[in-house]
Amino acid sequence: MDIKTYMREVGLCARGASRLLGRAAAGDKNRALIAIAGVIEGQRSEIAEANEKDLAAGRQSGLDEALLDRLLLNSDRIDGMIDGLKQVAALPDPVGEVSGLRVRSSGIQVGQMRVPLGVIGIIYESRPNVTIDAAALCLKSGNAAILRGGSEAFQSNLALANCIRIGLEQSDLPVTAVQVLETQDRAAVGELITMEADVDVIIPRGGKGLIERISRDARVPVIKHLDGNCHVFVDKAADLAQAEEIAYNAKTHRYGVCNAMESLLVAAPVAEQFLPKIAGRLRQAGVTMRGCELSRAIVPEMDEATPEDWDTEYLAPLLAIKVVADIDEAMAHIATHGSGHTDAIVTENYSAAQRFLREVDSSSVMVNASTRFADGFEYGLGAEIGISTNKLHARGPVGLEGLTTLKYIVLGSGEIRQ
Amino acid sequence: MDIKTYMREVGLCARGASRLLGRAAAGDKNRALIAIAGVIEGQRSEIAEANEKDLAAGRQSGLDEALLDRLLLNSDRIDGMIDGLKQVAALPDPVGEVSGLRVRSSGIQVGQMRVPLGVIGIIYESRPNVTIDAAALCLKSGNAAILRGGSEAFQSNLALANCIRIGLEQSDLPVTAVQVLETQDRAAVGELITMEADVDVIIPRGGKGLIERISRDARVPVIKHLDGNCHVFVDKAADLAQAEEIAYNAKTHRYGVCNAMESLLVAAPVAEQFLPKIAGRLRQAGVTMRGCELSRAIVPEMDEATPEDWDTEYLAPLLAIKVVADIDEAMAHIATHGSGHTDAIVTENYSAAQRFLREVDSSSVMVNASTRFADGFEYGLGAEIGISTNKLHARGPVGLEGLTTLKYIVLGSGEIRQ
Repeated sequence: MDIKTYMREVGLCARGASRLLGRAAAGDKNRALIAIAGVIEGQRSEIAEANEKDLAAGRQSGLDEALLDRLLLNSDRIDGMIDGLKQVAALPDPVGEVSGLRVRSSGIQVGQMRVPLGVIGIIYESRPNVTIDAAALCLKSGNAAILRGGSEAFQSNLALANCIRIGLEQSDLPVTAVQVLETQDRAAVGELITMEADVDVIIPRGGKGLIERISRDARVPVIKHLDGNCHVFVDKAADLAQAEEIAYNAKTHRYGVCNAMESLLVAAPVAEQFLPKIAGRLRQAGVTMRGCELSRAIVPEMDEATPEDWDTEYLAPLLAIKVVADIDEAMAHIATHGSGHTDAIVTENYSAAQRFLREVDSSSVMVNASTRFADGFEYGLGAEIGISTNKLHARGPVGLEGLTTLKYIVLGSGEIRQ
Repeated sequence: MDIKTYMREVGLCARGASRLLGRAAAGDKNRALIAIAGVIEGQRSEIAEANEKDLAAGRQSGLDEALLDRLLLNSDRIDGMIDGLKQVAALPDPVGEVSGLRVRSSGIQVGQMRVPLGVIGIIYESRPNVTIDAAALCLKSGNAAILRGGSEAFQSNLALANCIRIGLEQSDLPVTAVQVLETQDRAAVGELITMEADVDVIIPRGGKGLIERISRDARVPVIKHLDGNCHVFVDKAADLAQAEEIAYNAKTHRYGVCNAMESLLVAAPVAEQFLPKIAGRLRQAGVTMRGCELSRAIVPEMDEATPEDWDTEYLAPLLAIKVVADIDEAMAHIATHGSGHTDAIVTENYSAAQRFLREVDSSSVMVNASTRFADGFEYGLGAEIGISTNKLHARGPVGLEGLTTLKYIVLGSGEIRQ
């Protein structure tokens, strides 16, 4: 069977499954999730074996240690997948919720009902546990899923797909509710992202290259996450001790994450007092700093920042530092160089906080908190399929609600339009 | 100046204006709308003169009467634009509303703030009053607008653009908040729909050809409205007198509108009783009916329906009629042939109503009401920029809220991630 035909069949199966899933009861969906968790528990050794094959192939083809680590499914990570399934099962079902039902002067009642998007295509790299996490979120939100993992995790993904299939067979949901593509052919991705009739949204998870390529070629709408070039702005009215803790946490808590601070902006009136202290702590933590001229006049040990530094998501122990005149220059800098992901101000000034909240156009805008809080779990969404830097539909951390949409419902008693 | 350069400049001006508009006070936006209304009132004769030029050119190039009528700006329609501006000014400002602000166990407060999308590009055909309606909705929702009208309405649109400009000059909003493209070059549209950095969403308004072309070529997200192939299903448990009124209204109230019924589905147990009555009334109204075999066995005067009829949006006094076994066949037919716009059931059966509401995947799903109610004004949105058949973001009638998005806000008191 050629790839086009194979993918068309996958699409039709997914669309068919989505109709059944859309009306599935919460209990049936939860039982399916628990069943999959049970199968994974029972197949630990099969999963580990398949994963060992991927690791061996990866070592042979010279994957670096970081990639091999992402690929690894050890006992802890298998526990993590099982726990994840149980946690998603325990979340409230978003589907069917009706909001805003009001009577209009014509007599009709109008409201909105939350419904699944339909069919979700997820394209991801390396980490095989995404197979389970994504399947769980799609199932719970009543969507059919088509999953396409990285070729380096092919055997692991097949083993996990097998667990999902057995779990679904034990449930009242259609077995094609989750389909893991069983081909390594790259043309399958090209088909998936252009199957407008049978796929409602594509969620790519991986490096910037993957996401840009998919966004460029997709005909299906993409919920995407590009850069996380996050800023912390220390206002002249900041509590400087607090600012130091927030900036330190935002940079050093984890380096390789999208909500880590990549640029620190400091208001000129407090720069001389603030910069030496934070620079000392960051240096001790092993962070390389690249400063503007004013910053380097205060802390000469900093490297010199080049214009590219303001636009770079380092994902590393590196930080760009700039002294700005005031909140206006800070917000203008963020508007020009930010990526619309997460930006924070540290200030005790009420008006500065209000202005920053209102005027900074990012998916998360914070006052006096670490950018590291931009996360579905920290926000109380219960789970997260990614963080969207789109403006339309889901913006910021995407949980179950982001995988649903609202349709209008009208309840009448024979009304006709006059 | 070449088109690329011209459009880049338009885009930069729009982006700059959007930053100011995003933080504009409701009062300033409302005063600008009222100012524009005042200028239109004062320029009635200039508008009529410009419109007369378009009409003359249209007559000369052989536009049909329907198109010429859409082009016409008579005194009533100028009144309509002025009233529209005043109505939009009177609506509540959606921007800045904060919802769901809750304290998390970490101590941070997390909520969502409603903010403008940014820059909206609107591409439309013939009706010049869209220039004013679209400008009003964009301004009120805090978005900068780039408007591209049809070439047949070029002079009218320039006259209206002039009113908008003068009105904006009298206000505290930037004059580039609304830019009407002053070129008839088609390449301008190609630029507009691919300027991802400076345009946040494209809304095409016009025929299916225009919308398909734009959706195909756009890199910017499109809020689109394709077909309105709307169904009314008369269930076996329907109040048949009510069903007759609803079906008659949904078909005959207006023919050329997207929420008119195009297919009537009738449950077999009530077909013999229901079809002759509704067919008689529709025939009297001048509606041509195309029926399935079972329908024609009951009402032989119907034409024979071909398979294409089930997929056609007639926008005319034409109706496809099908007898179905039950609600399952009706919903399967709608899933296969519907366009996801608006579908209604007529029934007194509680479970049938609940199933139809839940399972039919359309932007508006109705029980015992005419499909003609699918409309922003009837739904209480106060205004409407169009009806979206997208699943993501705005679905169904799009009012001011559909031109906004939600960003997360986090209010902390020095919290850091543990």
